[in-house]
Amino acid sequence: MSGKTIWFTGLSGSGKSTLSHAVKDILSEKGYPVVLLDGDVLRKGLNRDLGFSASDRAENIRRAGEVAKFLNDLGHIVLAAFITPVESLRKAVRSVFDDDKFVEIYLECPLTVCESRDPKGLYALARRGVIKEFTGVSAPFQNPESPDFSVDTDKNDLEQSVNLVLNFLQLKFPDLEKTAIRASSRKNKTGRLP
Amino acid sequence: MSGKTIWFTGLSGSGKSTLSHAVKDILSEKGYPVVLLDGDVLRKGLNRDLGFSASDRAENIRRAGEVAKFLNDLGHIVLAAFITPVESLRKAVRSVFDDDKFVEIYLECPLTVCESRDPKGLYALARRGVIKEFTGVSAPFQNPESPDFSVDTDKNDLEQSVNLVLNFLQLKFPDLEKTAIRASSRKNKTGRLP
Repeated sequence: MSGKTIWFTGLSGSGKSTLSHAVKDILSEKGYPVVLLDGDVLRKGLNRDLGFSASDRAENIRRAGEVAKFLNDLGHIVLAAFITPVESLRKAVRSVFDDDKFVEIYLECPLTVCESRDPKGLYALARRGVIKEFTGVSAPFQNPESPDFSVDTDKNDLEQSVNLVLNFLQLKFPDLEKTAIRASSRKNKTGRLP
Repeated sequence: MSGKTIWFTGLSGSGKSTLSHAVKDILSEKGYPVVLLDGDVLRKGLNRDLGFSASDRAENIRRAGEVAKFLNDLGHIVLAAFITPVESLRKAVRSVFDDDKFVEIYLECPLTVCESRDPKGLYALARRGVIKEFTGVSAPFQNPESPDFSVDTDKNDLEQSVNLVLNFLQLKFPDLEKTAIRASSRKNKTGRLP
């Protein structure tokens, strides 16, 4: 099975981390060489020199895309979870990959819902002005114009969302096995997003 | 077998690329998950925004170290071939890794010999001033103060150099198999460096 990148875009709190971890666990259990790449991982090392200005966000995404491509070339399936707030960034990162090795999945969820979840308490800090340039509060988020797939993580719970993603991936990538990759056998790990 | 990084330092023309490719081929044939990382690879993608000023060289090495560490954490053995011209850069990159997961190998070769090899024609361009800030000509190279191992690639041919490196790696890393990793069975690929 060849390397590929599954790129999750969406607001903070839309479920990118929860969903990508759940998909990773399922694919890893099946023996696929899956790697999770997200801002938390990269900003501790490779991208520790970057802040959250528009240009630093762009560079954060550019480097993430290049690392994902490098990992793909080594055979890894990369699950990349980055807000990727504007369309130009999404287009730039997509351009790094061959068409059949990349998909953009939009985790669609109203800002009010993401903010009410606020899993890391970041929205509260952003509203108080402690965090500057926070996407959705004080920095822009453009809805994706042409994602390969969208999941409404407000209306679907984690198990449903994971199965929608897995079903899409199996349709898109014929070298993923066609059966028995489902979240439903993992009842103890399901729950509402995020 | 756990991930680790083998970092080759030395002048342009000292044999970093030739030697690291040869070591990679041998370890790969044995089934080890080896990845080659060098300036040519990184400067086409992740590091394409960097030039050859002292600060850009430092950033090039910093990112290479972080990528190597990330790959180690995925289980890969990384063969990193970078001039790494000054001691502060070598110390900085070493600090990214656990002591038992990193070795610095110095490919020692007089500048005059490296320049006479000039495998990419870069010394000639540097002498004519076409390439600026070229290590050994118009930018500094400090001899490593405390490499874990040194190979004199002027006095040893490729096969000898490869076997010296493999022997050192097997002593340093007990989880590398102890026997039958030698370049001598690959006579058709040996020759004089680089």
